[in-house]
Amino acid sequence: MTRPVDAVIAAARPFLGDRITTNASLREQHSHGEDTNPPVLPDAVALVETTEEVSRLLALCHAHSVPVVPFGAGTSLEGHVTPVRGGISVDLSRMTRVIEVNQADMDCRIEAGVTRKMLNQHLRDAGLFFPVDPGSDCTIGGMCATRASGTCAVRYGTIRENVLGLTVVLPDGRVIQTGGRVRKSSTGYDLTRLFIGSEGTLGIITEIQLRLHGIPEAISAATCQFGDLEGTVETVIAVMQAGIPVARIELIDDVQMAAIAAYSKLDNLDAAPTLFFEFHGTPASVAEQAAQAEEIAAHFGARGFKWATDPAERAKLWQARHDAYWSGIALIPGCRGVATDTVVPISRLAEAVLGAKQDIVESGMIAPIVGHAGDGNFHALILVPPNDPAALERAWALDRKIVARALSLGGSCSGEHGVGIGKREFLEIEHGPEALAVMRSLKATLDPRGIMNPGKMFLN
Amino acid sequence: MTRPVDAVIAAARPFLGDRITTNASLREQHSHGEDTNPPVLPDAVALVETTEEVSRLLALCHAHSVPVVPFGAGTSLEGHVTPVRGGISVDLSRMTRVIEVNQADMDCRIEAGVTRKMLNQHLRDAGLFFPVDPGSDCTIGGMCATRASGTCAVRYGTIRENVLGLTVVLPDGRVIQTGGRVRKSSTGYDLTRLFIGSEGTLGIITEIQLRLHGIPEAISAATCQFGDLEGTVETVIAVMQAGIPVARIELIDDVQMAAIAAYSKLDNLDAAPTLFFEFHGTPASVAEQAAQAEEIAAHFGARGFKWATDPAERAKLWQARHDAYWSGIALIPGCRGVATDTVVPISRLAEAVLGAKQDIVESGMIAPIVGHAGDGNFHALILVPPNDPAALERAWALDRKIVARALSLGGSCSGEHGVGIGKREFLEIEHGPEALAVMRSLKATLDPRGIMNPGKMFLN
Repeated sequence: MTRPVDAVIAAARPFLGDRITTNASLREQHSHGEDTNPPVLPDAVALVETTEEVSRLLALCHAHSVPVVPFGAGTSLEGHVTPVRGGISVDLSRMTRVIEVNQADMDCRIEAGVTRKMLNQHLRDAGLFFPVDPGSDCTIGGMCATRASGTCAVRYGTIRENVLGLTVVLPDGRVIQTGGRVRKSSTGYDLTRLFIGSEGTLGIITEIQLRLHGIPEAISAATCQFGDLEGTVETVIAVMQAGIPVARIELIDDVQMAAIAAYSKLDNLDAAPTLFFEFHGTPASVAEQAAQAEEIAAHFGARGFKWATDPAERAKLWQARHDAYWSGIALIPGCRGVATDTVVPISRLAEAVLGAKQDIVESGMIAPIVGHAGDGNFHALILVPPNDPAALERAWALDRKIVARALSLGGSCSGEHGVGIGKREFLEIEHGPEALAVMRSLKATLDPRGIMNPGKMFLN
Repeated sequence: MTRPVDAVIAAARPFLGDRITTNASLREQHSHGEDTNPPVLPDAVALVETTEEVSRLLALCHAHSVPVVPFGAGTSLEGHVTPVRGGISVDLSRMTRVIEVNQADMDCRIEAGVTRKMLNQHLRDAGLFFPVDPGSDCTIGGMCATRASGTCAVRYGTIRENVLGLTVVLPDGRVIQTGGRVRKSSTGYDLTRLFIGSEGTLGIITEIQLRLHGIPEAISAATCQFGDLEGTVETVIAVMQAGIPVARIELIDDVQMAAIAAYSKLDNLDAAPTLFFEFHGTPASVAEQAAQAEEIAAHFGARGFKWATDPAERAKLWQARHDAYWSGIALIPGCRGVATDTVVPISRLAEAVLGAKQDIVESGMIAPIVGHAGDGNFHALILVPPNDPAALERAWALDRKIVARALSLGGSCSGEHGVGIGKREFLEIEHGPEALAVMRSLKATLDPRGIMNPGKMFLN
């Protein structure tokens, strides 16, 4: 008897050719993200190039009830791209067209496989930039699917605030347009926001209309270091409460700072709790913001600002910040990382961060802390030595402890990585059984056969 | 035989007492908003006071398939609160508790019947404010339901960006919590955004967790007047494209300016196209923004800025702007207004506004124009003399013409008033049949008996 997936492959061959494949190394590549969940091979990989191909492929998968797992850059930290029930991994990384850039309206339309670095490279000459910057160079389709953010969200919002509209292929192959090009509209249900953060469980995003921002006239970056973590966190809270419109305010603990200094050759910084700042605006407003922030930091015991003045130095600083995951991982040769991703109201940030630090110390594990502290969001990267299943269990237990504290402080188990496999157990605790039932009913309505990324977001 | 609605009234009597009523004058009050749709009496009015009462009442309406129409301040301009199929008007205007204000986190939790003026009055001593300000003093629940905005959206976003979470009663009486208190989260479907803009068709919002903002250290307001509408619009476009972070930038045409000057006694302004500006920030940044804006305005022929320096003068200016609807209506004694609400990408604003002005002139009707121009959103208030059904028909025809142009320019038929009754015919044109089918399927899932605000948003 032909397996359903073989029927899909055969039927897709006429329009995908050898871009739908059971090649072993491609299947292996699509069996995992960058997380610690056990890899699972998809039955096949489809390297799609157009919305129409995605539509025809999904119609087939729907007809044959074959699981579909959307795949972008494979940088998920929560198992989103692992095909836990097999099926077809639909790889959108070839869909990299920038369809249009509307300079006057500061928006653009791109295909879902464009990465943030590709886009910013493309935009440079237009004087515009796209501010949402997770650590990895992930696809923007993937960022939409996980409701991603990054270091600039404190000023420019998350991906949620920077998407104007989407093209989405529904599980049965229908194609819809959501939103549009206008900055605001009050017509109809907000389908754009329904798909943002839906983690591939409701359909596949193939095109995105993005809001862009003008490159600021003046940008200045600075670091400042502290004697203790407490003063570092208190500075963040005070800067936010003072309403200083910082473009970035990143918290890095002593362990992470040691890792960054070694990995990224930032030899002018000590292994001490540190803040990375960036200010955007006119030269005068940037100077004013920086002076206000410096005064607050001094009050909480900072050793003074070190300025990254020229663009190359600034780029090096932020690349080091974006490489925090890799510099952390480099602390133990061959290790893997379990990244926590809690977020709390800013007034509870000290409790959350200092509590996590205490948990880490008590666990005996190595877990550098880094965070988008202005949003109340921080990560502990719990390092798991190779081939040590007991350590992996301890890492998950530590993650659970940090999540439980964040939830008790009115927070969320994930600020930007998403639910995937790893955070499913917390979804009902965080949202309550009634809201979860509504989410499940929306899922059943849009994906009645349950083919879209099964085993993610919801337990069973 | 007992009518279903009578069964609901009888069953609700034990917990609502005489707060569920068929009193004639209350039914009349709940038969219409501020729009020109024909009034329709509800069968009864329920003056609810708690989420639990709403829950019990909706469970009864669901069981008996009785229509439910949520009612706040009754300020809808698109027929949202008109009970076109009778049933029960659920009035939330008594639910006015400010449940909590978290000064350190700049958020608060309120009941849905709190109005924006009530809230800002309550917040004044905390140094915080809520920036979403439609012209009327509507309830914040109603603002959520219609995805409202106002003059400050250009800087602070619409209600969509300022809601952190909701309590919603579903059509069958279940109560859900959406969102939370954190600034960002990537866990689960965005139910908050699903209910924002749902116009009472999916459930009733009873509580709202709002994001607040610090009252800026410095605020300065100014007006500037132009010889023609073109220079006025071009100034708005250039200010936005220059990235000046204006807090407000409102466009007012010659007809509206004459109306405002007379109604609000702004005797230092001519009946000429005008911009109202407001700048927020530190004293230095406000001065810098104002200088930049003034330079751009001068380039497009403005006659120079007039500053509203003290708070009383500033308050008078913005009250005059918020009263634009009433000053417009006052131009023809006893008339009513059909308010258009189109929004376009900013680069097309000149075409949209100048085209609308031309349409108005050709129609021979009086229709002052006023707009949240920085968002690409403007209103023509088409005046309809009393007892003149032919004029009402001409007003709707003019509205359709203005909407058609906005849609052809990549815009939306409504920036902030919503679909209600008046814009239903445009929903499919704007979103396409596939997206509309998805919206209908969501409606059918959450409200399988179609009791929630029937006859709104969707045609039949």
